[in-house]
Amino acid sequence: MTIADRLFTNGSFHTLDPDNPIAEALASWRGRIIGVGARVDLEALTGPDTEVVDLGGATVLPGFIETHMHPIAAGVQMLAPQIGYPDCRTVADVISVLREVASSTPVGKPIQSWGYDDSLMVDDRHLTRHDLNAASTEHPIFVRHISGHLSYANDRMLELAGITNDVEDPVGGLFQREASGRPSGCMEETANFTVGGILPFAEPDVLAAGARAISDHCLGVGVTSMTDAAVMATEMYATYQEGIDDRSIRVRTRLFPGWRFVGDLPLRTGLGGDMLSIGALKFVSDGSIQGYTACLCKGYHDRPDANGTEVIPAAELIQLVTEAHRKGWQVAVHANGDQAIDNTLDAFEAALEAHPRDDHRHRIEHCQTVREDQLERMARLGVMASVFANHIWYWGDRHRDRFLGPERGSRIDPLASFTEHGIVHALHCDMPVTPLDPLFTIWTAVNRITRDGDLLGPEQRARVADAVAGYTSAAAILNMEEHDKGTLEVGKLADLVVLDADPFTV
Amino acid sequence: MTIADRLFTNGSFHTLDPDNPIAEALASWRGRIIGVGARVDLEALTGPDTEVVDLGGATVLPGFIETHMHPIAAGVQMLAPQIGYPDCRTVADVISVLREVASSTPVGKPIQSWGYDDSLMVDDRHLTRHDLNAASTEHPIFVRHISGHLSYANDRMLELAGITNDVEDPVGGLFQREASGRPSGCMEETANFTVGGILPFAEPDVLAAGARAISDHCLGVGVTSMTDAAVMATEMYATYQEGIDDRSIRVRTRLFPGWRFVGDLPLRTGLGGDMLSIGALKFVSDGSIQGYTACLCKGYHDRPDANGTEVIPAAELIQLVTEAHRKGWQVAVHANGDQAIDNTLDAFEAALEAHPRDDHRHRIEHCQTVREDQLERMARLGVMASVFANHIWYWGDRHRDRFLGPERGSRIDPLASFTEHGIVHALHCDMPVTPLDPLFTIWTAVNRITRDGDLLGPEQRARVADAVAGYTSAAAILNMEEHDKGTLEVGKLADLVVLDADPFTV
Repeated sequence: MTIADRLFTNGSFHTLDPDNPIAEALASWRGRIIGVGARVDLEALTGPDTEVVDLGGATVLPGFIETHMHPIAAGVQMLAPQIGYPDCRTVADVISVLREVASSTPVGKPIQSWGYDDSLMVDDRHLTRHDLNAASTEHPIFVRHISGHLSYANDRMLELAGITNDVEDPVGGLFQREASGRPSGCMEETANFTVGGILPFAEPDVLAAGARAISDHCLGVGVTSMTDAAVMATEMYATYQEGIDDRSIRVRTRLFPGWRFVGDLPLRTGLGGDMLSIGALKFVSDGSIQGYTACLCKGYHDRPDANGTEVIPAAELIQLVTEAHRKGWQVAVHANGDQAIDNTLDAFEAALEAHPRDDHRHRIEHCQTVREDQLERMARLGVMASVFANHIWYWGDRHRDRFLGPERGSRIDPLASFTEHGIVHALHCDMPVTPLDPLFTIWTAVNRITRDGDLLGPEQRARVADAVAGYTSAAAILNMEEHDKGTLEVGKLADLVVLDADPFTV
Repeated sequence: MTIADRLFTNGSFHTLDPDNPIAEALASWRGRIIGVGARVDLEALTGPDTEVVDLGGATVLPGFIETHMHPIAAGVQMLAPQIGYPDCRTVADVISVLREVASSTPVGKPIQSWGYDDSLMVDDRHLTRHDLNAASTEHPIFVRHISGHLSYANDRMLELAGITNDVEDPVGGLFQREASGRPSGCMEETANFTVGGILPFAEPDVLAAGARAISDHCLGVGVTSMTDAAVMATEMYATYQEGIDDRSIRVRTRLFPGWRFVGDLPLRTGLGGDMLSIGALKFVSDGSIQGYTACLCKGYHDRPDANGTEVIPAAELIQLVTEAHRKGWQVAVHANGDQAIDNTLDAFEAALEAHPRDDHRHRIEHCQTVREDQLERMARLGVMASVFANHIWYWGDRHRDRFLGPERGSRIDPLASFTEHGIVHALHCDMPVTPLDPLFTIWTAVNRITRDGDLLGPEQRARVADAVAGYTSAAAILNMEEHDKGTLEVGKLADLVVLDADPFTV
């Protein structure tokens, strides 16, 4: 009688297990690791029916865990008209793409897209209803900013949403206005929901196609576990369950219910199995730096009077987080600006004071402008972070020169400081905000090179081991799944990524 | 390097696996079976660190799977004042028990209990508000009938629920009335919710204590997996998750959301892991035979004008079941009376016609008065059943002599016919309606002996193998968990029950 159904040999395994860091072979049985070490030591686990996979000397890591993305949104966007940079470089390009889409779309059917990046356009401005009217007046058009924190609508869409000239700004949001006071067609934060919330995120068949597309994409870049950091529509739960059941989604998936959309879900963090499970409850406390909605203690570099938006007012955040914590949820709070990070830490501290709990693993998502004193406080409270390291490359130049100025901009995503303070932290891509490619994100964390080729804040460069942990062992801890994932150890899932180069030596 | 962390030897294993029915040893690794067969064949899987458990020749079966009970309700009731037979034999006994409870309960605090069985009391009648007023006028009192399908309240409770003399009967329910038209304090079916629904099912600490109590009870009778056949309050989800997390619940648990209470739960059957998962969506189409609310095609034996209650009207049931089926749920419908079974099969057939699906595993719960033509239809539609076999012993005499008459009463729970028609079926106890004890239920299914010692419908006696399957292999199929449970095979969970006698030989 034999055991292993698979034996991977002739590999260079980085196990991420400090007790057994390097191995040349790995045996698995029904998807679980039953041995990892020297090939000779694993012989006893094999027999004539064992499938032997010769890795030809390749480097192997634990399968990458993406701790913060929006898989269905990303998949849907992969299949949608491309209006982002560099596909489009001017507002006219965007209008042209959308006009093309409209020409083949039945009159009256809504058109949605994601990815407009105002500060990379030659025009360097937001879209207006006039721009989108030029694409079509016969289709409602709803376009999301690359950050997901702003959006744009044409007149047909505004009308469909019942937006009139005297519409009031919702709490935590804003309608940009023309001189007359009439909404310009550009919405910020919670005003996005006021307009876009009247449409389904996408039709069920589009959701399903998006889920399949993102699953395939994940496997192509070594991601074996993904996280939906804010399930934003109830129908998405069904899309995930159906996709897992019919195997069109082949990536393990953890769902963070978005608090605005979760209804009275009576369940909480932890329910689920190997393929699909419920993770943290997700709150959004502020916006996006490049949208000027991240909530900063001091004003923006090029707009000193602006310091962003409390998407959830501080007092309400304390209340919401405390209630979620009391119910036993792991809590994940989106906070980019340092004021939002203060608000979030206030909320975590209040919750923990009211209802002490060990091993809560509450998280700050993005955490980009975190200060040293805040890192100290995070360490004291046991708060973890999933850090948006891709910003260094994608927006680093603009953070330094435009949004935050040299001091705050160069310190964006201070990875060395996270390590120094002993804060468990992962890295993420937030796709569709930036593309999913863990090796690129690891490279960015380690090198801090911007899109323009500049070195941004060299003192905050991550060590390779820490950056790799940010997609493996540390990521598993943030997602509360280290019993199954993150390192290559006996008993854990045999999720592997095979590389053609070794990140520890290049 | 060794594999098995446990080796069970010297056992008489009935594996329920037709390819390998008998074994003497079983090896497990981290809770999974890695070998089952002759001890000598398992030696290769063991080593010095393997814990060897000598079973001393005992009989071993796959851990019992209870497919239909109400665990928290049962656990809470285990800890509550006992008002059922034989603790109480008269209405006066019940009043006395409740008066005792009231004397130690703060004034105004509600008192709840479950288990009054009118037709076993000397008085042979339902409780009234006057009876419960005699126990206390200072505490709201709410008592459930043993069936769970009727309930009783005192004046204080009726007042708290806002029940006035001119209250209308809700759809699918009834207020029994005094001659004046005033509600008597006895409610049927959905009227139970009108009154009892204003109270929490129990306080959180009582729910948690109940969960712990029922888990311990399960393990004592060999039940390693239990099913909550209708989660009736949102707070129960938290009780289950917390109990599993802190290991006060040590039994694998499958939850059937009760459709009236599920809110807009966006998830569906299948989400979950080894310990806690979501099963079927549960509907209740009729009531209880002994409460005269089971919905029969022909009137009750001793009340020919009564034929029960459509708790969900037939047309609405079609709509609800079709929608749940469309969303991908496994659907479980409580149906005791043959009219309710007709309604349920109409609903399943309509759903399958509108949205064909293989392997739906829709279930009829209880299915006690099923006719031969209905069994044919079930087989054709692929509908399964969880059969309330304990009724034979507990109410069989009364079914024959009082509620259903000799013909229908003797055929109650026609287990041989289920097998003959090839319908996958499990057995259940519905605790707290009857006690959880699978060996007793198996014995009842095989012997059909009533409480009075009569043999009821001998032609419907189950074979031992089929009755055992009703708590193991067939039960796993009904719960959609046969990949993990129900037989002792390599790869499945090592859930075992060790018996001191062999049900296949006694």
